[in-house]
Amino acid sequence: MANAAILVIGNEILSGRTQDSNVAYLGKELAARGITLAEVRIVRDDPAAIVAALNALRAAYTYVFTSGGIGPTHDDITSAAVARTFGVALERNPEAVRRLQSRYGEGELNAARLKMAEIPAGAQLVDNPISQAPGFRLDNVFVMAGVPSILRAMFEGIRHTLAEGPPQLSRSVTLGVREGDLAEGLTRIQDRHPEVDVGSYPSFTEGRSLVAIVARGTDAARLEQVMAETRALAAELGAAVSEG
Amino acid sequence: MANAAILVIGNEILSGRTQDSNVAYLGKELAARGITLAEVRIVRDDPAAIVAALNALRAAYTYVFTSGGIGPTHDDITSAAVARTFGVALERNPEAVRRLQSRYGEGELNAARLKMAEIPAGAQLVDNPISQAPGFRLDNVFVMAGVPSILRAMFEGIRHTLAEGPPQLSRSVTLGVREGDLAEGLTRIQDRHPEVDVGSYPSFTEGRSLVAIVARGTDAARLEQVMAETRALAAELGAAVSEG
Repeated sequence: MANAAILVIGNEILSGRTQDSNVAYLGKELAARGITLAEVRIVRDDPAAIVAALNALRAAYTYVFTSGGIGPTHDDITSAAVARTFGVALERNPEAVRRLQSRYGEGELNAARLKMAEIPAGAQLVDNPISQAPGFRLDNVFVMAGVPSILRAMFEGIRHTLAEGPPQLSRSVTLGVREGDLAEGLTRIQDRHPEVDVGSYPSFTEGRSLVAIVARGTDAARLEQVMAETRALAAELGAAVSEG
Repeated sequence: MANAAILVIGNEILSGRTQDSNVAYLGKELAARGITLAEVRIVRDDPAAIVAALNALRAAYTYVFTSGGIGPTHDDITSAAVARTFGVALERNPEAVRRLQSRYGEGELNAARLKMAEIPAGAQLVDNPISQAPGFRLDNVFVMAGVPSILRAMFEGIRHTLAEGPPQLSRSVTLGVREGDLAEGLTRIQDRHPEVDVGSYPSFTEGRSLVAIVARGTDAARLEQVMAETRALAAELGAAVSEG
């Protein structure tokens, strides 16, 4: 089965100023296509950190998606770092220039904006229907914008090029119980269904303990079976059950 | 200056089901203490993945904080993976048992809950004032719960043990301008203040382009100077300015 990693590039995520939302979006979209998101790394706007992370991830996973750092300002260094990772030149890409020209008037296409047309040699462009400045693909690495609306639009354009497996499905139920009272019975359910990934996620609201049980896998009937057994366990424990 | 990494452990984050909020919290808290959050990794509930990530991060950074996987259920495998990382035994910790006893009645302290007292040999406990089940510290690695309220309570208890440097401060201003029109002037500002980290973060709302300029560093007067120069640049460009 194909798997994937995400490399998020940006000081603003690590400083806590900006809350990342691209990981959750891509995690769901990849699962729907049958691709497991296996690892995420978030690194600073630092060329050496980007190169090291990219080299590790592209060797380990089917696909790598990067987010962030491909804009026109001085802190946008992703394209240069990707070129360095692959040992290729950063070149002005004529098709990328043409796309920027379609958006910006002659006087507006300044040096900063032309920087967005500097693409590693040999890369294929990824469409950006929102602001035209393209992403790109080089080998198994897809380089995308960090702005969530643009990342999503870019991913829409490339998703059909990715391997497709049986979609990863999930079913969940929330129980009004403490996790430690549920654990033993839940282990038995997991042991009976080794091909299902049974997860247990506690939360505490207004002094009340809740546990969400999530079953993930590719066989819908199996997941329903796990949910039925979880509901039976809840009944045994006298726990309230709510959906989702 | 001390730096840090976070290792988030959990399939639920990678599947997109749960939105992580611990990274943003710790990023802010560490910056306030003068510690730079330099890298984050998110891995699945997989012992080999946890061990590999921990070994890489603990060698590279002053501190490593893990979040997730220390509860009572079958998918909570962090403590065992940390023991394996350090090549030490996982032992029933008498003080951890005592803490669990303070919360749970005799009949309630079942095998699943006692699993939360299995701590790598040589570790120091980290207090959990919310549900008692402790985190722990081994060398430069702090192992904490994934539930945000508990992670925060645990961090409150350990923050005073961390190195303290000049707090990383930030100032920001939002300009009603397109990033590409601003880029050249902003590069000049960054070049004049190399010890300040000047970041540029575009967003698009209702067809309107906004750019948040964030200056980060330890010298408040320098940051104000960068903000003043940014406002002057905005005036030159005829851009609207809003705070924050």
